[in-house]
Amino acid sequence: MALAEKHGVAVGAHPGFPDLMGFGRRPMTVTPAEAGNYVKYQVGALMAFAKGHGLKLQHVKPHGALYNMAAKDEALARGIAEAIASIDKNIYLMGLAGSVMLTEAEKAGLPVISEVFADRAYNDDGSLVNRKLPGAVIHDPEVAVARAVKMAKENKVISINGKEISIQADSICVHGDNEQAIELVTKIRTALEAEGIEVKNFLS
Amino acid sequence: MALAEKHGVAVGAHPGFPDLMGFGRRPMTVTPAEAGNYVKYQVGALMAFAKGHGLKLQHVKPHGALYNMAAKDEALARGIAEAIASIDKNIYLMGLAGSVMLTEAEKAGLPVISEVFADRAYNDDGSLVNRKLPGAVIHDPEVAVARAVKMAKENKVISINGKEISIQADSICVHGDNEQAIELVTKIRTALEAEGIEVKNFLS
Amino acid sequence: MALAEKHGVAVGAHPGFPDLMGFGRRPMTVTPAEAGNYVKYQVGALMAFAKGHGLKLQHVKPHGALYNMAAKDEALARGIAEAIASIDKNIYLMGLAGSVMLTEAEKAGLPVISEVFADRAYNDDGSLVNRKLPGAVIHDPEVAVARAVKMAKENKVISINGKEISIQADSICVHGDNEQAIELVTKIRTALEAEGIEVKNFLS
Amino acid sequence: MALAEKHGVAVGAHPGFPDLMGFGRRPMTVTPAEAGNYVKYQVGALMAFAKGHGLKLQHVKPHGALYNMAAKDEALARGIAEAIASIDKNIYLMGLAGSVMLTEAEKAGLPVISEVFADRAYNDDGSLVNRKLPGAVIHDPEVAVARAVKMAKENKVISINGKEISIQADSICVHGDNEQAIELVTKIRTALEAEGIEVKNFLS
Repeated sequence: MALAEKHGVAVGAHPGFPDLMGFGRRPMTVTPAEAGNYVKYQVGALMAFAKGHGLKLQHVKPHGALYNMAAKDEALARGIAEAIASIDKNIYLMGLAGSVMLTEAEKAGLPVISEVFADRAYNDDGSLVNRKLPGAVIHDPEVAVARAVKMAKENKVISINGKEISIQADSICVHGDNEQAIELVTKIRTALEAEGIEVKNFLS
Repeated sequence: MALAEKHGVAVGAHPGFPDLMGFGRRPMTVTPAEAGNYVKYQVGALMAFAKGHGLKLQHVKPHGALYNMAAKDEALARGIAEAIASIDKNIYLMGLAGSVMLTEAEKAGLPVISEVFADRAYNDDGSLVNRKLPGAVIHDPEVAVARAVKMAKENKVISINGKEISIQADSICVHGDNEQAIELVTKIRTALEAEGIEVKNFLS
Repeated sequence: MALAEKHGVAVGAHPGFPDLMGFGRRPMTVTPAEAGNYVKYQVGALMAFAKGHGLKLQHVKPHGALYNMAAKDEALARGIAEAIASIDKNIYLMGLAGSVMLTEAEKAGLPVISEVFADRAYNDDGSLVNRKLPGAVIHDPEVAVARAVKMAKENKVISINGKEISIQADSICVHGDNEQAIELVTKIRTALEAEGIEVKNFLS
Repeated sequence: MALAEKHGVAVGAHPGFPDLMGFGRRPMTVTPAEAGNYVKYQVGALMAFAKGHGLKLQHVKPHGALYNMAAKDEALARGIAEAIASIDKNIYLMGLAGSVMLTEAEKAGLPVISEVFADRAYNDDGSLVNRKLPGAVIHDPEVAVARAVKMAKENKVISINGKEISIQADSICVHGDNEQAIELVTKIRTALEAEGIEVKNFLS
């Protein structure tokens, strides 16, 4: 606990499909109840470890393919949200900004964290541009940082078509398996703080 | 919850080794910390499901080879007990009567449930006679029932050498994968109740 | 070997997705190469056991969701077919009658076994009627048997729209987890033999 | 195939316990038949992949805890050896020099490869000094290289008690997860070749 407090961080669960070989990144056809059960199992397990360190679980963010599918599939999102709510209605659900995952979480009585991506292009409707399309990923760290600041400060982003759209930015995702992750996260934090925006966890 | 209350039952976790193919019945050489982690993971997962039904976890009883090893191995027993205590010190640890699993659980601050076996022969020191030895398993249901009553009523059992020994009998184990299980458990309950002994869970 | 010879049976592999909890019956998004690797792994493993009993592998029939997906997805079917061909081009590929799984297997140089279902309704194009639609499953054993005989004898089946369509019937599938399986398979065999149609494996 | 031939290498299987989390390095109590089945499954799977590349399996070397247990447990060693022999009696069994794994493999009709360790101390009876004892691991690469040469050239090694003992050295093990592995293996090879000892696979 001391360590988490010292660093101002909080713990969240990142549950996904039971697909070890595919690292949970491959879509699987599961029922909402099955998805809810997988989430409960993994969240409960992590809560036991957190408790042993005097920590509470701050949030649950579905992982990989489950995250992407639940952003679009209302029934799946509901299965996940209700599973978490049945454990503890104080747990935040972290999901894609503007997605049905967040609206279903709210319906289930959960507080939500709206997540944005600094290095991904957005469509006019607020969804992410498909990775397979040109321009979907923003490789220039300076551009990514500037977008992160605009999103955090104004809750706005420029879509791939040049349109300014609204986007709720409670949390900015940087993938840890990205080689530039440390550089990117450092630059984003510095830029946010230069704008007077405090970076902190949701339990503090 | 209504159902559990109606039937007077309580929920317990039965965590074991990560050995799906061997059903957790094969000894594995793990460190006390590894054993503790496996227990935490499984107990936490079950707690999440129990919570969703408004139920609290009554007890944890290590499964299969983990149960047998922790009955004799003090360090392993301590690893398991401390893992459970780090989650919740109100959870009962169910273990073999007279074993180090129970003494380590008590040291870790857990309430304990001392388990006895109606259909197993006991050595003079209160340990179970090895299954490979003749007379280890009691096949006559009448004899098993009589032993169960004596254990529950007097906290005594006649050892394989004919000696009366002390044994703390808080719970009587009947294996669910035994074809005679329903018959045996029905007869034991009837016999206990005829002696004025109430069968109930530990949370009521 | 003696046993297999005595009963006139042959051994086939039934490889599926690495989805133990879903029994391989849930669609997963995998690449053709991944599918091929899963098939190779499982087929190779079974070949080792078969070899130990002096037996050769007769066929490979993809299992569950992999079977259904490969019946329609040409690239997936090719990944599976080429994986098997790389092991041994004498292994039969068993797949849904009329599906791309069979055409891809033939392109990969494998002999094929065209499989039909006695208790399933067919669309006019030879595909199976979706299980969710009324009339998709034929519950009357007599009707199923009559259809099996017609398919085996004439390579014809009456579609759900009443049209007589062509269907290559090398093998008739009866699911082993169907309670009526033994009855159905016995009746089908009796009816086929009454028509002078011999039931045998493909290696004899 | 071209690649394997070009580099003069051969393929071997390294099957172990079904203990993914423990990387197969934790002893498990399995029957000889279970051990044989795990070996068959893994060896068969690798053979399918090797076949797809036009390669034959050169050898099987049990992995981790299975290797160590089978070096001392005759029944377990026999279960493994007979499993491999049932697949193909031309596969080499690679095992600890002087162990029952090799004698059981020979009894099962398999050719054997006697493996030695350049960086491990030996007891007078040819067994490895327990890793927990001081001096068990040789950290000086120069010493390890000298020992490797003596073992390969003379089939002799100086035991931890200073006694010269016989040891059959067909293959020298260097662990790939050792940071110095590349350095050590390069030095050993250079030293062996300087002595006119050819390093080659067993199929060539």
